[in-house]
Parts: sequence; C-alpha cells; structure tokens
Amino acid sequence: MKRYTKTGLAAAALTALPTLALAQDAAPSFDEIGPYIMTTLLFCMAGFLVFFMAAGFAMLEGGLVRSKNVTMQMTKNIALYSFAAIMYWLIGFNLMYPGDGWMVAGWVGPFFSTTVLDPVGVAAADAALDYASIGSDFFFQLVFVAATASIVSGALAERIKLWPFLIFVILLTGVMYPISGSWQWGGGWLSEAGFSDFAGSTVVHSVGGWAALAGAIVLGPRLGKYSKDGKVNPMPGSNLALATLGTFILWLGWFGFNGGSQLAMGTVGDVSDVSRIFANTNMAAAAGAVTALILTQVVYKKPDLTMVLNGALAGLVSITAEPLAPSLFGALWIGAIGGVIVVFTVPLLDKLKIDDVVGAIPVHLFAGIWGTIAVIFYGEASLGTQLMGIIAYGVFTFVGSLILWFILKAVMGIRVSEEAEINGLDKAELGMEAYPEFSKG
Amino acid sequence: MKRYTKTGLAAAALTALPTLALAQDAAPSFDEIGPYIMTTLLFCMAGFLVFFMAAGFAMLEGGLVRSKNVTMQMTKNIALYSFAAIMYWLIGFNLMYPGDGWMVAGWVGPFFSTTVLDPVGVAAADAALDYASIGSDFFFQLVFVAATASIVSGALAERIKLWPFLIFVILLTGVMYPISGSWQWGGGWLSEAGFSDFAGSTVVHSVGGWAALAGAIVLGPRLGKYSKDGKVNPMPGSNLALATLGTFILWLGWFGFNGGSQLAMGTVGDVSDVSRIFANTNMAAAAGAVTALILTQVVYKKPDLTMVLNGALAGLVSITAEPLAPSLFGALWIGAIGGVIVVFTVPLLDKLKIDDVVGAIPVHLFAGIWGTIAVIFYGEASLGTQLMGIIAYGVFTFVGSLILWFILKAVMGIRVSEEAEINGLDKAELGMEAYPEFSKG
Amino acid sequence: MKRYTKTGLAAAALTALPTLALAQDAAPSFDEIGPYIMTTLLFCMAGFLVFFMAAGFAMLEGGLVRSKNVTMQMTKNIALYSFAAIMYWLIGFNLMYPGDGWMVAGWVGPFFSTTVLDPVGVAAADAALDYASIGSDFFFQLVFVAATASIVSGALAERIKLWPFLIFVILLTGVMYPISGSWQWGGGWLSEAGFSDFAGSTVVHSVGGWAALAGAIVLGPRLGKYSKDGKVNPMPGSNLALATLGTFILWLGWFGFNGGSQLAMGTVGDVSDVSRIFANTNMAAAAGAVTALILTQVVYKKPDLTMVLNGALAGLVSITAEPLAPSLFGALWIGAIGGVIVVFTVPLLDKLKIDDVVGAIPVHLFAGIWGTIAVIFYGEASLGTQLMGIIAYGVFTFVGSLILWFILKAVMGIRVSEEAEINGLDKAELGMEAYPEFSKG
Repeated sequence: MKRYTKTGLAAAALTALPTLALAQDAAPSFDEIGPYIMTTLLFCMAGFLVFFMAAGFAMLEGGLVRSKNVTMQMTKNIALYSFAAIMYWLIGFNLMYPGDGWMVAGWVGPFFSTTVLDPVGVAAADAALDYASIGSDFFFQLVFVAATASIVSGALAERIKLWPFLIFVILLTGVMYPISGSWQWGGGWLSEAGFSDFAGSTVVHSVGGWAALAGAIVLGPRLGKYSKDGKVNPMPGSNLALATLGTFILWLGWFGFNGGSQLAMGTVGDVSDVSRIFANTNMAAAAGAVTALILTQVVYKKPDLTMVLNGALAGLVSITAEPLAPSLFGALWIGAIGGVIVVFTVPLLDKLKIDDVVGAIPVHLFAGIWGTIAVIFYGEASLGTQLMGIIAYGVFTFVGSLILWFILKAVMGIRVSEEAEINGLDKAELGMEAYPEFSKG
Repeated sequence: MKRYTKTGLAAAALTALPTLALAQDAAPSFDEIGPYIMTTLLFCMAGFLVFFMAAGFAMLEGGLVRSKNVTMQMTKNIALYSFAAIMYWLIGFNLMYPGDGWMVAGWVGPFFSTTVLDPVGVAAADAALDYASIGSDFFFQLVFVAATASIVSGALAERIKLWPFLIFVILLTGVMYPISGSWQWGGGWLSEAGFSDFAGSTVVHSVGGWAALAGAIVLGPRLGKYSKDGKVNPMPGSNLALATLGTFILWLGWFGFNGGSQLAMGTVGDVSDVSRIFANTNMAAAAGAVTALILTQVVYKKPDLTMVLNGALAGLVSITAEPLAPSLFGALWIGAIGGVIVVFTVPLLDKLKIDDVVGAIPVHLFAGIWGTIAVIFYGEASLGTQLMGIIAYGVFTFVGSLILWFILKAVMGIRVSEEAEINGLDKAELGMEAYPEFSKG
Repeated sequence: MKRYTKTGLAAAALTALPTLALAQDAAPSFDEIGPYIMTTLLFCMAGFLVFFMAAGFAMLEGGLVRSKNVTMQMTKNIALYSFAAIMYWLIGFNLMYPGDGWMVAGWVGPFFSTTVLDPVGVAAADAALDYASIGSDFFFQLVFVAATASIVSGALAERIKLWPFLIFVILLTGVMYPISGSWQWGGGWLSEAGFSDFAGSTVVHSVGGWAALAGAIVLGPRLGKYSKDGKVNPMPGSNLALATLGTFILWLGWFGFNGGSQLAMGTVGDVSDVSRIFANTNMAAAAGAVTALILTQVVYKKPDLTMVLNGALAGLVSITAEPLAPSLFGALWIGAIGGVIVVFTVPLLDKLKIDDVVGAIPVHLFAGIWGTIAVIFYGEASLGTQLMGIIAYGVFTFVGSLILWFILKAVMGIRVSEEAEINGLDKAELGMEAYPEFSKG
C-alpha cells in the first residue's frame, strides 16, 4: 500500500527518535512486553470509564436537586473534578504513593512535587515491564479521587456556598484522601495489617461518605426540610430522567472502577479476573436495584425510583471491597444487602435531621462499610482487621472533615443566605438558571 | 522504582496464590495466550458498550413518552435490566448454552443452575485457551438479553402496569429468549439447518419485536390515541433531546453489539473483522438516518426527527444479521432500506390501531426481518432457510407471548385504570413525578 | 468444555474459510501480529469514543439554544454526522489519503471511489502488519470529520435553514476538509514543510471554526441579539444540565481523539505514549475549566458555568496539537491559556456583532490557533512553519466557506424567515417541539 496514512507520517517522524528506531531494530518479544501493554491499556480503558463517572455524578445530582439549584450543582461537579485532577497531580499522587520518600523533587522544589511520566517513546528497557506505564497508572489513580469529592457534592447540595465547598474539595483530594489512601494502597500500615479493600468501598466511598456526613452536620439541613413538629418535607428532584441517566453512567463507570483495580490484564489469570469482576459488579448492582424495588413496594406499597437508583448504586459500592472472590451468587446477596441498607437508612438519616440531598451517605458510607465487612466471608481478612480499617478511615476522615468544615464556617461561612437558598443558588449566586424557560414564576 | 504501587501490593498478595506464582515461573508464550486475552478483552469491552444500551433505551423511551409517565418508564427500564441480569444468570445462560445437558448442578440443585465462572487467577492450563474466560462470555451474553426486554418496554409504554410487565420480562429473559436463542447460538436445530444471524437481527431484535407486538395487541392502544372516526391523534414525546441522546447511546452500544459478536479478537483476521464490522455498523446507521430524513422531507414536506432517530436505529437493526460480509456500499443500502421500512410502517401500525409508543415494532421487528433476509445477498444462507428461521422465531415468540399476556391479563390485569392513565402513571402508580416543577397543572 | 458456545459455532463456520484455517495451522507469532492487533484495537476503541463526541456536541448545543430550537438542533446534529459518514466514505477518505492517485476505482467508476476494506478474515500475510486494518483506520478517520461539522452547527444555531446547512456539511466533509487535511495528514506540502499538528487543533478544530466564522458573518446575528444602541442581549440556553452532559461526553471522547492519534499501540513506547496523552489531555481540560471558573469569578464577580464548560473544551482544543510531548505541567498551562482565551474572546465576538450561539469560534478556532502555536515550545516545529500552516488552513477554509455560504445564500437562501425565527425553528420548520409540554405560551 502506497497510501499515505497518518501512521506513515508518524512512522517517518518516529524514526527520528533513536529509542523507537532501536526498538524496531531489536524489538523485544511480546512475551516480555505483552503484559505491560495490556495492563497499560487496562488503565487507559478503565480510566476513561471512571472519568465518565464524573458525568454520572453530575447527572444524578442534577436530577435530584430542585431546578433552582441545577446550574450550581453542574458548576460544582465540573469544578470539583477539575480541581481534584490538578491537586492530585500537584500533591496527592506523590503523597499517596510516596516511594522512597513523601515528596519527590519536582518543578518547584521539594514541597510541590510533580509526577514525572515516562519519557515520550520510552524504550522497553527503561519501562516498568512488570507493571504498566506511569502515565496510565497516574491517570487511573487520578480519576478515582474525584469520585470521593463527588459524593460530598451530592449530600451538601442546595445550600452550600461554591468556594468553601471547592476549598474543601482541594484539601480532601490533595491531602486527606491521599494520606489515608496511602495507608492501604500506598503500602502503609493498614495494608501491612492485612486490611482488604480491593477497589475502595472504604478507601474511596466511605471516605467520601464520612466527609459528606461531617459536612451535613456542620451545614445543617435545607430550610423547610424538617418541620418543628418532626415532619419531614419531601423536596422532590427536578429531573428523574437525568438522575436515571446518571445512575446508568455510574454503573458503566464502575466496570472500570472495579475491573481496573485488578491492576493487571496481561496474563490468563488476570484478564479472566477482570471479566469475573465485570460479571460480579453487574450482578451486585442488579441485585441492589431489584431489592430496593421489591422492598419499597412491600414497605411503602409503591415502588420508589430514587430508591431503586440508590439501590443499584449501593449494590455497586457494596461489591467494591471484594468484586473478585465472590461467586455470582455471592455478588447477588452482597449487592442485595446494599439495597436493603439504602431503603432503611435513608429514612433514618431524616429522623436524625441530617439532610443528605441525594442519599449519598447511605449509598457510599453505609453500603461501603457493609461491603468492607463482607470481605471476611471470602477469607481475605478477619473481621477485626476490617473493623479496624473502617474505624481508622472513619475517625481520620470524619474528624478531619469536621475540623475543616468548622474552620471554613468560621473563616468564610459555608452556607448561602436564607434569601439565596429560597430563591435558589442559581439566581442568587450565579445569576444563571439551568432551565430559564421552564422554571416556575 | 521503589514507589509502592497498588500493583506492588497486588503482586505481593498474588504470589500467595500457587497458580499465579506458577504462571510466573513458567509463563506461557503470548502465542498461546494472546488470543484468549484479546477475546476476553473484546467481551469485556463490547459488554460494557452493550450494557450502556440499557441507558440508551431508557433515554429514548423516556424522551418519547409524555412527561406524566417518565418516572414509570425509568423504573421499568432499570428494573427490566436488573431482573434480566438475575434471570439470565439463574436460568437463562444454562438454558441457552446447555452443554452436556439442559441443567447444570448449581447452588440449589438441578433446577436452578448457576453459571460457575473460572476460578480466581485461573491458570493458563485450566483456561479455555481456544476461546475466552467464562466470565467474559457470560457477561457479554447477559447484556444482550436485556435489549430484548427493552424493546417491549418501549412499545407498551404509558398504559401497562409495572409488575405484570416485569413478570413478563422475567419469563422472557429467563425462559423464552434462552430457549429460542439456543436454537441458533446454542448449537440447536436452526444453526444446524444453516440459518444465519450474526449478531441477532432475529434472535434478539425481532424476538423483542414479536413480544412487543403481542403485548400491544392484548393491551390495546392508549386512551384517545385513535378516535372513533379513524383519526390518529399524535401524542408527542416530552423530551426530544433525551430521545436523541438515547439514540446516540444505542448507536455507540451497537459497536459492541455487532463487533463483539465476532467472538474473537486474537488473530489478524478476527481483529480486522471487528473493525470491518464497526465501519459497516456505522454506515448502516448513517444510511438509515439520512434515508428517513430525506423521505420525511419528500413525503411529509417536513423532516421528522423521531423518524430520523428511528431510521438510524432501523439501519442498525438491519445490519445486525450480517455486519461483516457486506462492503461499505452494501451496509449503506441495507441500512437505507431499514430507514425506508420505518418511515412506511410506523403509519401502517397506526392504521391497524396497534399503538407502539416509540416505534419499536417497525425498528426491531420489521427491520429485523429485513436484515435477516438481506443475509442471502452475501451467500451466507438461502432465502428458504432464512424465512424458516424468521417464521420459527416469530411463531414461537408471538404465540408464546400472546399466551403469557393473556394469562397475565386474566390473573392480575395488565393495564392501569383509565383514571391512572389520564393522570399519568407517575402520580397514580408511583406517587413521584419525573419533572415535578415543570409539569402542567 | 462441551458447552455449545457462539464461538464454537463461529469456529465451526470459520474452518470453512481457508485463510483462517491456514492461520490456525501455521499461526504467525504474536511478535509479528501483536502490534497490528493492538493498533487496530486502538482505532476501534478511540473510534467509538470519538463517535460519541457527536452526542456530546448535540447535547452541548441542544442545551445552549433556546427550547424553541432544540428539535432543529438535534436534527442537524444527527443528520450532519450521518451525511459526514457517507460523504467521507464516498469521496473524502480517498481524497485525504490519495495513495497512488486522487481517485481509486470503486463502485461507480473513477469519480466516486469507495474504500475497499480488508477482505473478511484477512490472512496475516495479506494484512498491513506494520500498521492496522483498513477498516479500523477508515473508521477512526471518519469519526474525526464529523467533529468539524459539529462546530459549524453550534455557531450557526437558531436561525440557519436545515438543508443549506446540510449541503454545506456535505461539501465541507466530502471535499474541503479532506483536501486541506491531506496537506498535513495525507503526506502533503504542509507535512513536508514541517508543520506539526498531532491530533488536529488546526486540521480539525480551527477548520471547523473558520467555516463557522464565515457562516456567522454571512448569516448575521439572531434577531434581537444586538440592540441598535450596542447592547448585547443575552439569550440563555434552555438546559444547562444537558450542556454540562455534552461537555463531559466531549471530554470523554477526547481521550480517543488525542490518544488514538498516536496511531499505534503495539509497542512499549506507543502504549506509554497513549497513556501519556490521556493524562495530558485530562490535565489541559481541567486547567481550562478551573481557569475560566476563577477568571469569571474575578472579572465578573460570578462564576459562569457556560464559560467553565467552554473553558474545559478550550483546554482540550489547545492540547490537541501536541498532547504527547508536554509534561503534565506543560499541559496545565497550555490548557489554562485556552481557558483565558475563551473568557476574553467570547465578549470580543459580541463586540464585533458576530453571533456565535455556543461559543464555538473562541473554543475551536482561537484556542485551536493557540494550541498550534504552543507546539513550538516542545521543539516540534518552528513558529514560522506553524503560522504558515495556521494561515494556510485559515485562508483556504475561510475563503472557501465564504464563497460556499454566499452561493447557498444566493441560490436557496440560508436563513429562516423572521416569523420562523421568532416562533422557533421547531414549530415553523419541523412542526415538532422538543419539550411540547413545558414550553411557554
């Protein structure tokens, strides 16, 4: 073929690079490089799926808030992902995976390290052939951290100010999550103690849930949510189609979240495990959704779509601590119990007058705890170790978050004015409505 | 690199597993394991794309029903996927691919078998190296079955009760689809007879269409759809942006639907075929959309977006029976005829007073039949065999569905009350509106 | 395993094909075929991600127009993708990558050539083992061209007629884009001159921007957009949740857009580069979003969501000319400057009374120029060469588009009537509203 192709040009350009030219001269065997290539691909693929969860959270939360706060919710979600991406690069990644030391020399000295990716066209001889490219590892880890922040954004919707929220996100994603994450995934004390959390029921989801819980307590409920006579006033979401879309996107992203956490795809065992994780993750979500559907039918006599959506998500959170070892039947009942948890703890929070707008705390914290405990049925860890880990993450994140929220409250205030809350954050804080032609008077 | 990575930990953990340690000691060559790895990856990747079609169907249908029924449509769609996932695991997969017998011993004995995935960290010696991991195969097959049920959900929208619909879905996905699917893909009589249906124009799409047609007949049209004087009253969809999104998501998912049905990606021939299928699938969808656009301009003097969306989908259904053999030009005209079919059969159904809310029967049944016939132009099968297959699936599914719908109607009723239908299923059946702030008085 | 599987059947069927049977007998080593398989997979995967950008553009634009024009915007977007797919096959691909000559013999002779894909089940001996399958290359190139047309669709929304717009799309995607694209990616004079544009800041995005600019000038602003006293009247988008979703989808698709443009994934160097591109692409988008957020807070005292969305997109466009060479810090500031450009040039266009409904010209043209210039900081090209390329694409596309728009205006008119514009294109031109139940009186 004499067709000029982009690749033809690229090949021409690349022959100028000695490393690649060398690689072509004495190409290493696929037996050596195949696993590296496949695992790097796994991280890229799982990474873009997990990235897309940012859209899932945005749609879920945008659908569950009232229309007067949708622009704000969108702004928070795209901003939190963006700040998380920058902070995790600037500090988080090196803090979480410190290697030889906690800080690696970078562009502005030892305090702010930056990750150095593999050089362009890295030669096989210089690559971590027993793992994957640094860029893919970094990208995969990075997309995880935003999930934690998204959980907070949902719970505190409709009354928190934009900037205090974003400052909290910056500290959560740049400092708190990486420190506690390092305990387990950075080779820290919990991993040495035998704590087991495959893809982050605790490390990611309950951390987000604890931060959200602390915020919800400090911030207080939305105006009018709880009447003085103890009545809970429903404030229905403005767009359940959007919320459903968000749930499906999260479900999709979770294949990357759990599947990518296998961290390898270049052997028969690893790729089979990835697919096993896909099947289990799907089953747990389905079981959570079905359980919530049946339970709301039986208990409340009417199926409740928001519970079904949260049931699916709770199933996903529940299976995240151990998506590999269970059989499909195991995944079914782990996810089903996640669904049960959601149906019974959403009203519980209301009784405690903790106002969690989207149900993030039941889904991510309570189901996250359940999933972390469920690991013990698969011989991966003891109940004591799992509880120790759950408590360690809980104390660190909840107390740390409480302190942060109190400081933010004292220094700059975290809650919009009553007037702004009543008129909606979109008009009051942003001057831009999400649905300007549809909104009521 | 001394950086602690998640992989470092995982590797440490895995060395405890004898099989993997062994695999590392005497790693099989990529020549042996490469095809297994690539095909397993194909199933995972195609599987998540097809999974996402559940979101596509939900958005398409949610956009084409009136706003008073959107919450119900969302509930049906996430519930049908979830029930399908469980039923296909519980019964369907083993029924469809029976292996040594129709039932395999499982967790509760011979009646309800469960699929046993490859063990965690399966060694190459124990894996089906000539194919792919069981988990990936199971996952890929599972996501197909939900598509069938989604087709029914769209056609019967806005008047069917939730639970009878879900019971039908349970029987369709757990029993009916697997039995008839087995005729072709389980090595049954139709595959032996030479019937050809690459990715399921008949096995999946027309089966869904027949089930929907039976349901639409038994259920009857929506109140007010057909006046006594023969007039057809349009009931426009509430959100065409959402319907368009759904169509694009379905189009995306179809790359997995057809591409994954190559069932192999580990050779030059197979991966080239997968990409050929991608190109053809895209072309057929584009041709279906353009044809419907031009036809509605010419025939009705105004382009009709819902016809364009359904035209694209009909193009996709049409190419599904044989997405590999045609040239790009072949894909173009196969898809274009799909578009023609939609434009002319949507009004036809209205003349017959069969009320198909989203146009699912023209798209999935009529274009599915056309696609199955079009196979003969590529020498894959004879017209007689193709017609035999079309008729066999039609008779089995249509008659079986009719019986089921009649039983459900007799036992529990399948249609909501007139009052509920007028007020909308969301308020009446679920007590939860999808757009509570926007809906009209 | 005696289980009948689809693969079992497929294998049975395939043994009938001599090439594959041969391939199994004397299977080439993965050392030979691995790169071909991986690169073909890259094109398929990146291709479906870029395909999905069509949905992203549709949602972004559908969210930023007023509700009375949403059906039209959806129609334009699905139609432009479909026409682009057909035109690029019919003429464009062969025009852009001419190989031995500008036209290759095809189904209707020398004038309309059609791409001939690899034969079904192509044997390794007959495949371009140093590259990828033709189908995957074609598919990947095809999805790029639609992006160019989508840019035009956004800028000219709310007043352009459907058919003149589609005729322009047909000529843009079938002729203009392929000709100018060939200068760089088809091995033409600009590539020989040393112009550097990795994934298309200029070749794709600024081309779309120039075509949009020409159209916006010829078409004129929307009625009432600019008062005679010089006031700019905001016409807020109807659905910012949808616009946010569109932005996230575009961000997702960009991993394919830039990552796939590595055009190879079968070596350690290539797959590492792909992941490096993923990390950089993500960083640039995040930096663009954060910059726009902070800038609108500082300059306008209120964060502006539409600016944040466009900031993310401008970051993506900016990094597209060179997503590989920069460090993460480099990607950060390249993207950040993209965000700055958007915030300051959106008002600039309004001062010039050029009405760009969605901000497509700042995002794709201005940030595209910036990204193309930024390449010089990475030693890939000289400023002179880059400017030459920018100007060449600008002159060709802008002048060519101007001529086309003027001809279309003279021959058939390109603008709807005043009445149609006031009542909305959906009612007037299509007779179908996107949100029939929500729209105001």
